[in-house]
Amino acid sequence: MRNLKLTLSYEGTQYLGWQKTKMGPSIEETLEKALSQVLRHPVKLQAASRTDAGVHAAGQVINLFTSSPEDLFRLKKSFNGVLPRDISVLTLEEMPDAFHPTLDAQGKEYHYHICLGNVQLPFLRLVSWHFPYPLNIDEMQKATKELIGKHDFGAFTSEQTDDNVREIFSIDVSMTTPDRLQIAVRGNRFLYKMVRAIVGTLVYIGCGKIKRSDLAHILASKERAQAGVTAPAHGLFLKQVFYAE
Amino acid sequence: MRNLKLTLSYEGTQYLGWQKTKMGPSIEETLEKALSQVLRHPVKLQAASRTDAGVHAAGQVINLFTSSPEDLFRLKKSFNGVLPRDISVLTLEEMPDAFHPTLDAQGKEYHYHICLGNVQLPFLRLVSWHFPYPLNIDEMQKATKELIGKHDFGAFTSEQTDDNVREIFSIDVSMTTPDRLQIAVRGNRFLYKMVRAIVGTLVYIGCGKIKRSDLAHILASKERAQAGVTAPAHGLFLKQVFYAE
Repeated sequence: MRNLKLTLSYEGTQYLGWQKTKMGPSIEETLEKALSQVLRHPVKLQAASRTDAGVHAAGQVINLFTSSPEDLFRLKKSFNGVLPRDISVLTLEEMPDAFHPTLDAQGKEYHYHICLGNVQLPFLRLVSWHFPYPLNIDEMQKATKELIGKHDFGAFTSEQTDDNVREIFSIDVSMTTPDRLQIAVRGNRFLYKMVRAIVGTLVYIGCGKIKRSDLAHILASKERAQAGVTAPAHGLFLKQVFYAE
Repeated sequence: MRNLKLTLSYEGTQYLGWQKTKMGPSIEETLEKALSQVLRHPVKLQAASRTDAGVHAAGQVINLFTSSPEDLFRLKKSFNGVLPRDISVLTLEEMPDAFHPTLDAQGKEYHYHICLGNVQLPFLRLVSWHFPYPLNIDEMQKATKELIGKHDFGAFTSEQTDDNVREIFSIDVSMTTPDRLQIAVRGNRFLYKMVRAIVGTLVYIGCGKIKRSDLAHILASKERAQAGVTAPAHGLFLKQVFYAE
């Protein structure tokens, strides 16, 4: 059996998230159907991140095992040929048997996009949060220092686990155009809705609803209600998954 | 009566073009319904460009006459509040009675987007032409010189008129990222599907199906079949309409 690693891009708008559900279409089910049609055998997919409903990906990583001897270039072309146009296989590689997209991941990078203009641009409506109010970007940038590093992020998730300590490697808050803000968050692993809670909290800091000096207290409280709003799903992209070289 | 000038952005995917048709939804009809609902009287719209089915706009200009005394800032907010999210009013201004968006236009700029990567990115699928073959950008750039200026563009339209002479002010062919190509065309007025015929012809030159040296002959022929393919509608944006200051 060959262990194939796929890097995916998808627009999550039409899906109820990565994971299969009886409630409607999922990325996982859509991919399983398409890939098994090409490979002519059932496939089981493992994904680095179970992206939520409406969340997008520019670099999701998954794997599958196949007995197909088909050339990788042709396989990728066939996969993209049967997939709907909102899901694309960007790269396809053969990995050692032991490769596992979740267990081997050393970290992930998420990007969050916010449009600050007074009118939302139609082309960005499905891939950014429209927030037409002034934000103090400098305060937001300074606030990231309180969140970077190892912390118990219990206040930044709606589903706490036994151990809510996670490590944030970096948070970059930058204006990419005069009215578009990007927040890039890199970390080892993330709790449920943690990136969106971080973004919502930074936005609350940017508009003065939370003070930067409150962050230490919010982290220590481990109470979700202390932090800011959960930013909407459609502004979030899984940008990249990091593996050891 | 107040003469209001609106600058619009829209994603044309869901519409059969600007102009009202019994075949399905149009930008014009959707706007008329929304704006008359806000203004509480029927409105008649005049647009600088009758964009085709699937074509987008980042700076369409239209006008309407209204007796409403409402403040422009509030009106714009109300318009955007009732419009579907794929159509936005970017700016709203009051103009002299004589202003006419088509007759007063001194020129228009269209942008065409092409994705050259071997996989189409899901986020660009509705707003760019996926052309995963090598293009000689240098040849395309040089070819623009043959098209700039006043010419009879009969070979670049599927609907010739009595006078097919138009003036192209500039054509800029540039890579905006390593695999995205943008072609910006500025001119005084355009024939039906003329920009898409120019783009298709430049792409044919880029892949060697037409020689740059053939362009003079193609223009002189005034036969549509001599020029290149009509590039697909969904890569085209009406970027800007120019008026005298």
